[in-house]
Amino acid sequence: MDESSLSAATRAPVSTDQLDGLVTVLHLVRSGQARTRPELARLSGMGRGAVTQRVAELMDSGLLVESELGRSTGGRPPRELAVRAEAGLVLVAPLGATHLAAGVTDLTGRVLDFVVEPGDIAAGPDATLARLEQLFDQLLSRTTVPEAPIYGIGVGLPGPVEFASGTPVSPPIMPGWDGYPVRARLSERHDVPVWVDNDVNLMALGELRVGAARNQQDVIYVKVGTGIGAGLISSGRLHRGTQGAAGDIGHARVDAASGIVCRCGNVGCLEALAGGAALSRDGTVAAAEGRSEFLGRMLAAGQPIAAADVAVAAEHGDPVAVELLSRSGQLVGETVATLVNFFNPSLVLLGGGVALAGDMILASVRETVYRRSLPLATRELRIERSTLTPDPALSGAAHMVLDELFSRQRLGRWLPVGSPSGYPEIAEEPAA
Amino acid sequence: MDESSLSAATRAPVSTDQLDGLVTVLHLVRSGQARTRPELARLSGMGRGAVTQRVAELMDSGLLVESELGRSTGGRPPRELAVRAEAGLVLVAPLGATHLAAGVTDLTGRVLDFVVEPGDIAAGPDATLARLEQLFDQLLSRTTVPEAPIYGIGVGLPGPVEFASGTPVSPPIMPGWDGYPVRARLSERHDVPVWVDNDVNLMALGELRVGAARNQQDVIYVKVGTGIGAGLISSGRLHRGTQGAAGDIGHARVDAASGIVCRCGNVGCLEALAGGAALSRDGTVAAAEGRSEFLGRMLAAGQPIAAADVAVAAEHGDPVAVELLSRSGQLVGETVATLVNFFNPSLVLLGGGVALAGDMILASVRETVYRRSLPLATRELRIERSTLTPDPALSGAAHMVLDELFSRQRLGRWLPVGSPSGYPEIAEEPAA
Repeated sequence: MDESSLSAATRAPVSTDQLDGLVTVLHLVRSGQARTRPELARLSGMGRGAVTQRVAELMDSGLLVESELGRSTGGRPPRELAVRAEAGLVLVAPLGATHLAAGVTDLTGRVLDFVVEPGDIAAGPDATLARLEQLFDQLLSRTTVPEAPIYGIGVGLPGPVEFASGTPVSPPIMPGWDGYPVRARLSERHDVPVWVDNDVNLMALGELRVGAARNQQDVIYVKVGTGIGAGLISSGRLHRGTQGAAGDIGHARVDAASGIVCRCGNVGCLEALAGGAALSRDGTVAAAEGRSEFLGRMLAAGQPIAAADVAVAAEHGDPVAVELLSRSGQLVGETVATLVNFFNPSLVLLGGGVALAGDMILASVRETVYRRSLPLATRELRIERSTLTPDPALSGAAHMVLDELFSRQRLGRWLPVGSPSGYPEIAEEPAA
Repeated sequence: MDESSLSAATRAPVSTDQLDGLVTVLHLVRSGQARTRPELARLSGMGRGAVTQRVAELMDSGLLVESELGRSTGGRPPRELAVRAEAGLVLVAPLGATHLAAGVTDLTGRVLDFVVEPGDIAAGPDATLARLEQLFDQLLSRTTVPEAPIYGIGVGLPGPVEFASGTPVSPPIMPGWDGYPVRARLSERHDVPVWVDNDVNLMALGELRVGAARNQQDVIYVKVGTGIGAGLISSGRLHRGTQGAAGDIGHARVDAASGIVCRCGNVGCLEALAGGAALSRDGTVAAAEGRSEFLGRMLAAGQPIAAADVAVAAEHGDPVAVELLSRSGQLVGETVATLVNFFNPSLVLLGGGVALAGDMILASVRETVYRRSLPLATRELRIERSTLTPDPALSGAAHMVLDELFSRQRLGRWLPVGSPSGYPEIAEEPAA
C-alpha cells in the first residue's frame, strides 16, 4: 500500500478539525468504547453533526461499517459501528532469539493465520529477513482474503530498538543487527510502512489490547525466555522511553561475585544467571555431574538439555531442576520487586518460554515479590502468567501498526476521504 | 472556596461539548502552547466559533484575560490570552522529614511567598498540620492580594501516599500518619479541595512544569535527603502508579550483608546505607574514632554531625568525608543505573538536601550510571542537579492542584459559566 496510491484522485484535503474528528472516532470505535453515533458524540465531546460527518467519511473510505443490531429499546435502534476488519491486512513478525514467528491480521488486529519455526536471530538480518519474507509470502498465498490490501508491517526484535527510526541499537544477542535498516529493507517488497519495536514491548501491548492487561493502567510484562526483558504500560499506554529502550532489565547486574560472563560481555547479569540459556547450561552441568537422574538420562541419550527440559524435570520432581528453577525465579523476583516499588503496577505478567514452562518460576517470582516489595505497592498487585497464545506479540505488533496508521500524525496522509455523504443526523441515544 | 458557592445563581448547566472545550482551552493556554484564538483553534481541532465561545466563557468566569500585545504583522493583531493569575490563590505545603515548607501561589502556579522551617514529620499529623495551618495563616496575613479566594491546597509528604484518597499508607518514617485523613483535616479550615501526594512526585512535577525537565518526555527525579525516593515522568505526565506509590526506591535492598537496619525495619535498604541519616551516622562514628580531623573538631565542639556537615568536610578535602559521599553516590548510582535501563529517561534530576550539598554525590552518581547502564539508554542521557529553589515541590504542589481543578472530571463542578457573550468570531491567524 503505497501512501501516494491511497491518495486517490477523489481525495479532498483534510482539515485539522476533520482529521482530529476522524482520529477520535476511529479510536473510540477501535477500542470498543463507542459503538453508536450517540455514544461517539457523548464520549468525544464533538457535536452530533460533526460525528455524523466523520462516521460517513470513514464509511466512505471503507474503514468503518455499521449493522442494524443495536439495542431494541423502542424507537429506531441505533446502528452499531465497527472497524471493517476485512478492509485490509497487517503483516506481523515477532522474532525471538531462537524462533521466527510471522502472522497476518485483519484491521481489528485479530490474528487470521500465523507460522512459528526455529530460527537463530544471530544468523544476522539478511538471512533472517529473507526467511521472514518467505514466511509472509506463504501466509499471503493461503489467505482467504487475497484481494485485501496490506496496510503495514510490524516487527518485534529481541533487543533494544530505537522506535522512531525502527533501528536496533547495540543489541547484545543480535550480531550484525546494530543499526540495520529493518524498516527500509521490509518496506521495499510490499511498499507499505513498517514499524519495529522490542519484542517484549509488543507482548505487553498485545496483552493490554486483547489479553489479561485489558483495562489496566499500569502493568509490567516480564519475559523470561532465552533472554530476560520487560515491557511497561504507564497510564494505559506503552512506555517506550526516550530511545525506545525502556524495559532492558536482562543486563542489570545481580551478582558480580558469580563471575558468570553474559553474552553482552559483562559479568553477573540477571539474564546470564536466570534466563533460559543459564538453565540449559546449569542443567547440562548437573546432568554431566550425575546430580540429576532425569536430566542425566536425556544427556546419555545424546539430547541437548534446554530450559524447557529443566522445567519438565522439575514437574517430575527432580530436586536439582526444582532448585535451578526456584533460584531463577528468585533472581527474577528480586529484580521485579525493585521494579514494583519503582513503578507500582496493578499487574505483573510473566511470559516467555521459560516462565511458561511449568509453574515453578511463577511461584518463586510471586513469593519473592510479595516478600520483598513495599506493602502499599503489593496491596492489590496481581502476578499472573501471560496467556495469549501462541505469542501476545503477534497481536501487539498488529496493534502497534494500527495505532500508528490511525494516529493524528499519519491518518491524514493516506486516508482517502471523499466528499461528505448525505448521512442522517445522529438519533438521540435511547434512555437506558 | 466552597464548590456550591461557586455554583452561582447565574450558572447554566455545562454540556459535555462545552466542558471538553473549556478544559482544552484552559490546558492549551496554561501550558503556553496557545496564546491566541487562532492558535487555540489550530491546536485543539475545535471550530473557530466554539473556541470563541469557550474563551468568552472563561473570561466571563474570570479565569482568562486578554491583552492587545499580539504580534504586529499588519491587520488587527490577535489578542494574547493568559490565565488571570491573580484570580485566586493556591496554598502549598511540601513537608519533608525534617522541615516544613508552606507557600502561596497564584493561578499560574507562580510562588508568591513561602516559609521554610525545621520540623519533625515524626511529631505526627496533629502537631504538624496544626503548625502548617499557622504557617498558612501567616502567609495569608501578609499577602498583597488578600481579596483573592483560595482555590485549593496541595500537600507533599515524605512517604507513600494513595493519591486518589490523599492518604499516607504505611509510611516508613512517619509514625502516626498511616491512614490519617489529611484531606479532610485541611479542607475543614478553608473549605477548599485538598490534594496530597508524595513529596518527590511534586518535585518532579515542579521541574516538569517550570524547571529543568520542561519539555522533556521521560524523566526520573531522584531525591537524596534524609530519605531517598524517586518521581517519574512518562510521556510528559507524572507516573504515580496504581496506588500512587511509584518511585519508592529508598527501601530497595542493596546490601543485606551490611546488617544495617533501616528505619522501615528491614535490613540493607538503599536509604539506610546512602541517605542523609546514614551520612550523619557514619560521619559521627568517623569523628568519634578520630578518623576525620574536620568532623572530629565539630564533634569536640559539641555539634551534632549532619549530612550537610559531611558534604562541607568533603569540600574541604577531608578524605573520610569524600569516601562517605562517594560511596553514597555509588550506591544511589547503582540503583539509578537499573532504573535508567528500565525506564530509559532523557534526564535524571538529582535533588534533596544531601544531593545538593556539594558536587561529590552528583559526580559519583554520574560516573556509576554511565558505567553501569546500557549504551542505548545513556546515549543522550543527561544527569543534572535539580535547580528550582527553595524547593521544586512548592511549584509542583501548586500545579498538582491546578491540574486537578482544571481537569475534565472537576472543572464542570465548580466553574461559574454564565450565558455566552457576544464575543466576535476568531480572526484568521496572520501568515508567519
